[in-house]
Amino acid sequence: MSVPPIVVSMGDPAGIGPEIVARAWEARVAASLPPFVAIGDARAVAAVWKGPIAPAQDLSAVAAAFAEALPVMTIEQAGAIVPGRPDADGARSALAALETATGLARSGAARALVTGPESKAQVYGVGFTHPGQTEFVAERCGVSRDNAVMMLAGPDLRVVPITVHVALAAVPQLLTIDLVLAKARATARGLRRDFGIATPRLAFAGLNPHAGEGGTLGREEIDVLAPAIAILREEGIDAVGPHAADTMFHARARADYDVAMCPYHDQALVPLKTLHFDAGVNMTLGLPIVRTSPDHGTACGLAGTGKAHPGAMVAAIAMADAAARTRAGA
Amino acid sequence: MSVPPIVVSMGDPAGIGPEIVARAWEARVAASLPPFVAIGDARAVAAVWKGPIAPAQDLSAVAAAFAEALPVMTIEQAGAIVPGRPDADGARSALAALETATGLARSGAARALVTGPESKAQVYGVGFTHPGQTEFVAERCGVSRDNAVMMLAGPDLRVVPITVHVALAAVPQLLTIDLVLAKARATARGLRRDFGIATPRLAFAGLNPHAGEGGTLGREEIDVLAPAIAILREEGIDAVGPHAADTMFHARARADYDVAMCPYHDQALVPLKTLHFDAGVNMTLGLPIVRTSPDHGTACGLAGTGKAHPGAMVAAIAMADAAARTRAGA
Repeated sequence: MSVPPIVVSMGDPAGIGPEIVARAWEARVAASLPPFVAIGDARAVAAVWKGPIAPAQDLSAVAAAFAEALPVMTIEQAGAIVPGRPDADGARSALAALETATGLARSGAARALVTGPESKAQVYGVGFTHPGQTEFVAERCGVSRDNAVMMLAGPDLRVVPITVHVALAAVPQLLTIDLVLAKARATARGLRRDFGIATPRLAFAGLNPHAGEGGTLGREEIDVLAPAIAILREEGIDAVGPHAADTMFHARARADYDVAMCPYHDQALVPLKTLHFDAGVNMTLGLPIVRTSPDHGTACGLAGTGKAHPGAMVAAIAMADAAARTRAGA
Repeated sequence: MSVPPIVVSMGDPAGIGPEIVARAWEARVAASLPPFVAIGDARAVAAVWKGPIAPAQDLSAVAAAFAEALPVMTIEQAGAIVPGRPDADGARSALAALETATGLARSGAARALVTGPESKAQVYGVGFTHPGQTEFVAERCGVSRDNAVMMLAGPDLRVVPITVHVALAAVPQLLTIDLVLAKARATARGLRRDFGIATPRLAFAGLNPHAGEGGTLGREEIDVLAPAIAILREEGIDAVGPHAADTMFHARARADYDVAMCPYHDQALVPLKTLHFDAGVNMTLGLPIVRTSPDHGTACGLAGTGKAHPGAMVAAIAMADAAARTRAGA
């Protein structure tokens, strides 16, 4: 019996998703990518790419077809597909592809799930009620939001935003000891399970400038982060900090930890994208399945121009493959 | 008549200031540094460096001495100097050096002021009441805090934090249209005056993740930043944004602006120090004098070990020199 493929939902058919999936297939030998199948409307791929496509409504056909053509499991959509022009039909198609891909990964028919970029505005318009794909996949896996961790990773840095898509003014109230503990425990488990790191080193950034400078620039370090770190250390998790965020991300500092735990979105995403704009991967830790995603949006302005960079999609498939192997003990 | 020297206050005598000033002098030819004089206690230099020192109580002696020895104008301190052990005597000496150096720059006897790192804990302990050296120098120059702009600059990036040393929770209330306008106007003027950029391009980061995503993740972009940017544009200042902060700092994005205007400390300092940890310069715009500083602290743990990196001090002196030349029209 052959190894199951990785499933890749292509995201919005009018965004760069279809093209970067196709170009990741082109890079399959150079990047040592395992067999994967694109899920979405094959017309979206054909509109922006002239390479060979193999229909793959049955996953068992993927492994044999992969060497010669991009396997595509088609989720048909009603209307025409125009690269760069997202619409409601496309959003419905993207959601159906996400639902199908997630189900295949949940069932074990696929080894791992990689999700392409959706248009938030469009999917909200057709009734999507989750903040993002991460929360959707977590719910389908029966995992609560606090225990599903969004980790962003590039070749030289991994970061976890402890709070994510919330207004900055709301962060201080949301940053509780319980939330920090839940995110840190799931992160430590995830780095063991998916990356094979026996004792992951978690470095916490402070919320405030200079990590609060002893309480004179804010007390969250003293009242929330330090107590949470103490509890984590008692549990045997290698947690350190809180450190001044601005001195945590240069090369020498990065060598001292496996993941930077950051109280809010931009503190995590700014250094990650500064260093790894074209190779950032979004990985959800804490799920029963392996799930990754390229860390960028639909970039509809680039769709159909041939200028989209496939690096993050290639990296997302490679990271999903590595994590699935690590879980399988291979 | 010879060109006046640059004055460099050495900062805390027990920190790395004296050593990096001496090592900057060693790099004077390789880095094309102009004549400068170190201000502080000559014993602090002698304790960590074996090179030649030329006493320079009179600035007119600096230019002639500079090729062969490090000119030092001594501000004596009462107690012993032990590298790595800051104390009250050292803090008083550092403040006296700062006061003297600022006065020399104000009077025109010096072309520019470079300030070495002070120990905040120590200077607060001996009665220093300003948040930092920037605010002290601004007051001595008769410039209000909102009009004195702290800009951090490295070879590939310049950033301005619009709010600086305040708790993160206080930032949303402090971020007003008036504050944004004051900082942006002083920044635009400073880039023209000190860097010779005829029409500086200012790119604003949003306060919230994804720049608020149309108001769903916070309204400061709509209520404060966008109106301020509109006013600036009416005044002829090339201001754009607010942009999502996480996509502003990779190489391609940086090519589109001369300075990133960031609502708070870490949003500005994280990318700057991620890219330029050993070469970051802190420059105060909006003053009648040119003032720069290496963008790091006293690093007392490194004092006397020979491991301190002089790159930021070298860059601070070079940037002060370039700005003074630009102001002089040379």
